[in-house]
Amino acid sequence: MSHEGKPITCKAAVAFAPKQPLEVVDVVVAPPQAGEVRIKIMFTALCHTDAYTLDGFDSEGKFPCVLGHEAAGVVESVGSGVTSCKPGDRVIPCYQAYCADISENPCEHCLHPKSNLCQAVRAWTGRGVMKTDEKPRFTLARDGSEIFHFMGTSTFSEYTVVHEVAVAKVNNDAAPLDKVCLLGCGVSTGWGAVHNTAGVEAGSTVAVFGLGAVGLACIEAAVEAGARQIIGVDTNDEKEAIARQFGATDFVNPTKFPGKDTQSVIVEMTNGGVDYSFECVGNVNVMRSALECCRKGWGTSVIVGVAAAGTEISTRPFQLVTGRTWKGTAFGGYKSRVAVPKLVEKVMSGGDKANLDKYITHRMKFEQINEAFDLLHAGKCLRCVLSMD
Amino acid sequence: MSHEGKPITCKAAVAFAPKQPLEVVDVVVAPPQAGEVRIKIMFTALCHTDAYTLDGFDSEGKFPCVLGHEAAGVVESVGSGVTSCKPGDRVIPCYQAYCADISENPCEHCLHPKSNLCQAVRAWTGRGVMKTDEKPRFTLARDGSEIFHFMGTSTFSEYTVVHEVAVAKVNNDAAPLDKVCLLGCGVSTGWGAVHNTAGVEAGSTVAVFGLGAVGLACIEAAVEAGARQIIGVDTNDEKEAIARQFGATDFVNPTKFPGKDTQSVIVEMTNGGVDYSFECVGNVNVMRSALECCRKGWGTSVIVGVAAAGTEISTRPFQLVTGRTWKGTAFGGYKSRVAVPKLVEKVMSGGDKANLDKYITHRMKFEQINEAFDLLHAGKCLRCVLSMD
Ligand SMILES: NC(=O)c1ccc[n+]([C@@H]2O[C@H](COP(=O)([O-])OP(=O)(O)OC[C@H]3O[C@@H](n4cnc5c(N)ncnc54)[C@H](O)[C@@H]3O)[C@@H](O)[C@H]2O)c1
Ligand SMILES: NC(=O)c1ccc[n+]([C@@H]2O[C@H](COP(=O)([O-])OP(=O)(O)OC[C@H]3O[C@@H](n4cnc5c(N)ncnc54)[C@H](O)[C@@H]3O)[C@@H](O)[C@H]2O)c1
Ligand SMILES: [Zn+2]
Ligand SMILES: [Zn+2]
Ligand SMILES: [Zn+2]
Ligand SMILES: [Zn+2]
Repeated sequence: MSHEGKPITCKAAVAFAPKQPLEVVDVVVAPPQAGEVRIKIMFTALCHTDAYTLDGFDSEGKFPCVLGHEAAGVVESVGSGVTSCKPGDRVIPCYQAYCADISENPCEHCLHPKSNLCQAVRAWTGRGVMKTDEKPRFTLARDGSEIFHFMGTSTFSEYTVVHEVAVAKVNNDAAPLDKVCLLGCGVSTGWGAVHNTAGVEAGSTVAVFGLGAVGLACIEAAVEAGARQIIGVDTNDEKEAIARQFGATDFVNPTKFPGKDTQSVIVEMTNGGVDYSFECVGNVNVMRSALECCRKGWGTSVIVGVAAAGTEISTRPFQLVTGRTWKGTAFGGYKSRVAVPKLVEKVMSGGDKANLDKYITHRMKFEQINEAFDLLHAGKCLRCVLSMD
Repeated sequence: MSHEGKPITCKAAVAFAPKQPLEVVDVVVAPPQAGEVRIKIMFTALCHTDAYTLDGFDSEGKFPCVLGHEAAGVVESVGSGVTSCKPGDRVIPCYQAYCADISENPCEHCLHPKSNLCQAVRAWTGRGVMKTDEKPRFTLARDGSEIFHFMGTSTFSEYTVVHEVAVAKVNNDAAPLDKVCLLGCGVSTGWGAVHNTAGVEAGSTVAVFGLGAVGLACIEAAVEAGARQIIGVDTNDEKEAIARQFGATDFVNPTKFPGKDTQSVIVEMTNGGVDYSFECVGNVNVMRSALECCRKGWGTSVIVGVAAAGTEISTRPFQLVTGRTWKGTAFGGYKSRVAVPKLVEKVMSGGDKANLDKYITHRMKFEQINEAFDLLHAGKCLRCVLSMD
């Protein structure tokens, strides 16, 4: 039975307030309006950014909301004017949109070769609403009250509505949605941080701080780029084995060097510092270490982690005057809607090397979402993929 | 009469202690040892970095010393093993050395395409001594006490001794030493910050903070690169006219916007921020403004100014995660000994556009050096060139 043009009542995991468990409740998902796409989510994973928002660290986070931004599904229906996808298309929602090939008046970021920060719908997704009428498409079934969107994706729901500019198609029919859903955030971000933002070359030395899925994806990409030394850094000793499986040549646990900062440890190990470093934790002190463990003259540090609102990074300016570069990345610099289908292709043609299975440590039913958050917080899990049926 | 192999007694402006005027006294300049070159300085300019060290802000500064690092002269004699220059050669001493085409065992920085921070003699120049015997070549004529070198150049002296790796030749006989001496630091630094470190492209928007010789050289290079908007920023209103002469299209005096930070002013003026910014002041608060006035997605800020020891730069990491890049530059990224001769050629073949005269606001006798420092402190002077005879 087609729901086209009609509201759908379905299950969603609603975050009613920060620091509270999610509640799986019935929500009503309004039909997509002009330029919008309603997606039946098939699989969604959890990313640290969901946990960070639920923990109340994101000053922009608006409650109640439907979190979730790493997912894959099937288009259920489209609003007027939507041309780039149609019901039945298999898709990955992208929290970072891309408008240049759809919009008549593309944003300057999509036109600029160096930026992937499409602004077409950013002002509205930041406020948890859709652009057309500045309202959310979610309401609570029991009382009709509004529930906000999150990152323009809100994938912790059986159905969600996103802007057309945020829909990447999975063109390869053989691509398993329960795996390529990871390309919606963490894995793509780590790969892109290495290949796009830093541009790691063969023979480079690399340090990766934080060995969750994002940091491990950095390691995987650094191996692919031909890095000759890859130092994994994590406060959790259990990460050493997995980091080495991904291709790390060394492991540093900062807590094992009391009274000594991590940058000194790495500068000594590498006889002067690494060519590239990646911060995949979201801690401003770690960001400083990551910069300062880079080599004088040409070292580049990329901030990937998202730090708590209000915190600041610092260093002596001499660190930069003597040749270090400090950068950051959002979604690995990929122009989402055009890049994600290529990443799917890469995974499908890549054999073992690009196999996403190694990021998936847990699988659960959607209803177990709070258990999945607990695993994430406990550092026991890379990615937990929830299935909706 | 040749002094080759013998000490030379001559005048030097000695900095006996921080925050004291220099004293022009007789010093004895020892003959150059292996790998060293004794230069008769003809012209020397003053740079902000000399003033900064004399003011006691440089934690590395060792007193008593002979300051000065923006100069030109003639080789008087060379020590054993020196092959790249000979007595009579017209030269520019380089505080940033370059060893790759001389040394049998070049340093990794000279071999690396991205770095110009030669380490061949850095450990010794940082301590104010020569590498061969870890001693200075200057002694006070009146009592034989040692006087330290500064930046490996010490050009505030009629004669100085430098390492061979720090000598750039002026191959063009028509090049006027009283002008090309500026290529020893400030002007080259500003040009290189724009062309090498930032890589400003045609059509870019640019903000330059601090309109001394270094900042104005950034403006000149930005014009050459084809920037379409160049905003000069200085707390001194008198800099507006000169900045516009150099090619600035706009001028901002931060003191005219009480309660509003400069980055907000520039972001508003440019409808989102500039593509590139340059900090040519040496103030960590200005460095933050320079970063944060850059455009989301791709803006790059280059720190050129040297901040007081112990001070730190800060920003929200979100500034970088949303696509801004923070870099720094030393000597504009030029590999000194090979690049300076090309810059001399550029000036000689460039006609008006590359004319160095516009940086030279004052000329004095060497003995008037303290007056020249007063002018620099008063913000009345871009470059004051002192002649030694
Ligand atoms: N910039 C982007 O576009 C983007 C995209 C996705 C995720 N992120 C961010 O990247 C970060 C990593 O995400 P994830 O999903 O891999 O998280 P995760 O929680 O799975 O992994 C973080 C890792 O950091 C380690 N860690 C914690 N404190 C540390 C310290 N002081 N030193 C070293 N290691 C430490 C933890 O043990 C853990 O292994 C998060 O901040 C997330 O918000 C950013
Ligand atoms: N990185 C390098 O290789 C290198 C090389 C040469 C010089 N430098 C540094 O570059 C800086 C500039 O050198 P210079 O010789 O042009 O100096 P300068 O003193 O001639 O010029 C500095 C300018 O900054 C302005 N200024 C002061 N405070 C300001 C503020 N808060 N906001 C805006 N403008 C302000 C002053 O009015 C002045 O016009 C110095 O810090 C110097 O040490 C660095
Ligand atoms: Zn994420
Ligand atoms: Zn766009
Ligand atoms: Zn200088
Ligand atoms: Zn060298």
